[in-house]
Amino acid sequence: MIEKSFLKENERIDDLQLKDLQIIQNTKKFCFGMDAVLLADFAAKSIKKDTRVMDLGTGTGIIPLLVYGRTEVEQIVGLEIQSEMVEMAKRSMMLNDVEDTIQIIQADLKAPPSQVLPNDYDVIICNPPYMVYKSGLINPTQAKAVSRHEILCTLEDVLTTAKKYLKSKGKFYMIHRSERLVDVLSMMRRFDLEPKTIRFIHPSTQQAPNLLLVMGIKGGNAHTKIEKPLYVYLEDGEYTEEIYDIYQWKKPKNKGGGNNER
Amino acid sequence: MIEKSFLKENERIDDLQLKDLQIIQNTKKFCFGMDAVLLADFAAKSIKKDTRVMDLGTGTGIIPLLVYGRTEVEQIVGLEIQSEMVEMAKRSMMLNDVEDTIQIIQADLKAPPSQVLPNDYDVIICNPPYMVYKSGLINPTQAKAVSRHEILCTLEDVLTTAKKYLKSKGKFYMIHRSERLVDVLSMMRRFDLEPKTIRFIHPSTQQAPNLLLVMGIKGGNAHTKIEKPLYVYLEDGEYTEEIYDIYQWKKPKNKGGGNNER
Repeated sequence: MIEKSFLKENERIDDLQLKDLQIIQNTKKFCFGMDAVLLADFAAKSIKKDTRVMDLGTGTGIIPLLVYGRTEVEQIVGLEIQSEMVEMAKRSMMLNDVEDTIQIIQADLKAPPSQVLPNDYDVIICNPPYMVYKSGLINPTQAKAVSRHEILCTLEDVLTTAKKYLKSKGKFYMIHRSERLVDVLSMMRRFDLEPKTIRFIHPSTQQAPNLLLVMGIKGGNAHTKIEKPLYVYLEDGEYTEEIYDIYQWKKPKNKGGGNNER
Repeated sequence: MIEKSFLKENERIDDLQLKDLQIIQNTKKFCFGMDAVLLADFAAKSIKKDTRVMDLGTGTGIIPLLVYGRTEVEQIVGLEIQSEMVEMAKRSMMLNDVEDTIQIIQADLKAPPSQVLPNDYDVIICNPPYMVYKSGLINPTQAKAVSRHEILCTLEDVLTTAKKYLKSKGKFYMIHRSERLVDVLSMMRRFDLEPKTIRFIHPSTQQAPNLLLVMGIKGGNAHTKIEKPLYVYLEDGEYTEEIYDIYQWKKPKNKGGGNNER
């Protein structure tokens, strides 16, 4: 039973349509998008009951919640630097009664606290800020800016931490913009997180990819598997079957109807 | 008028179906494939009348011929290490009466002769051996093996030469296997041939890419454009419109008929 006082100004509760999970989001700050859903789904394939998972820059806690909803995992750590986001994410975990599984820690991912041990994680996930700082327009709302631009952490920072805290042969999962492909792949190799699987996300079959999912293995050898493309929309603007599958939505029977719930 | 004695054992003359150009190929050795056609077409977009062009490891001279057929270019240099291939490529240039435009030089691309000047080319093209030596089965025919495996030159050798002989801001064009994506992109960046445009080639919309076209600029800044995918086949096994356009073939009117001329 959720009391109204549980929510702060501009906050709302969204239903994840996945095992009755809900998330608190602030409409004036960062709200999760399709990238979080695609990344959680991509990473979930490697996550079993006893997999040790950490999410870097967890924000509202959306990725831990989506991974929890898709797997049998028994513990996930989410690091987040912004205190307001940490407080909100912790309330989301209470709301879902998953505080025993998902631990939200306020920390700079560049310097995790001592309770986070090096060489200890099987899977590290990150939905990083996509844009190099000083490129593009900076969002005037701080929380949005931090999630979009490399203000508080750069790609190198993310990779340094992923390398340090992953076990040998542990897996690093990330989503990023296609235009940063060369940065992503060459830096991952430099940080010994050899890119092993890449999946490009295209708006449709006739468009270039705008995002990429990548999985790197700490200490992996050089051989990249590029998976078949993930297309988001059909020619008629309807979501593809695969998007419905990933969201675990039921496809509307009336093809023209769309899905207005998200 | 071609005399039969012009051809040696196992050789044949193939019509490129492009401005009446023909090429001599040896059926027991390397014959060009779709990759050469796609690479030549990809590079041709940057080639004008006075563009200085070099093809590294030109083999039969197929890429110079295809570029010649698609552009107004007035000179192309092709380097080839294998004397038999050089001799055959030179006969192809005679056959087409293009010896003034396309100069085939017998040389190891690791050490071009002094007539090839550093910092002198606007465009360097390479269809390199795809496979790391000692991986995969080695083709027992030497010419095929050299074209497929990094026996006589590695990716680093190709990039070293491309960097040395390109002008500043000159363009390097290559096709390679998708599974070597990380090698290609990270090495190009390391050799200051920043990957700027990438196009993945997929057998069909529902399959992963197996090849990639890449253009890098010597001294270029970090920003990658990934173009829309190039699909080779439609669902029904027929070539896509774009493949017909690239080959400059006329599409058969009888859709079921295929194209038996190649």
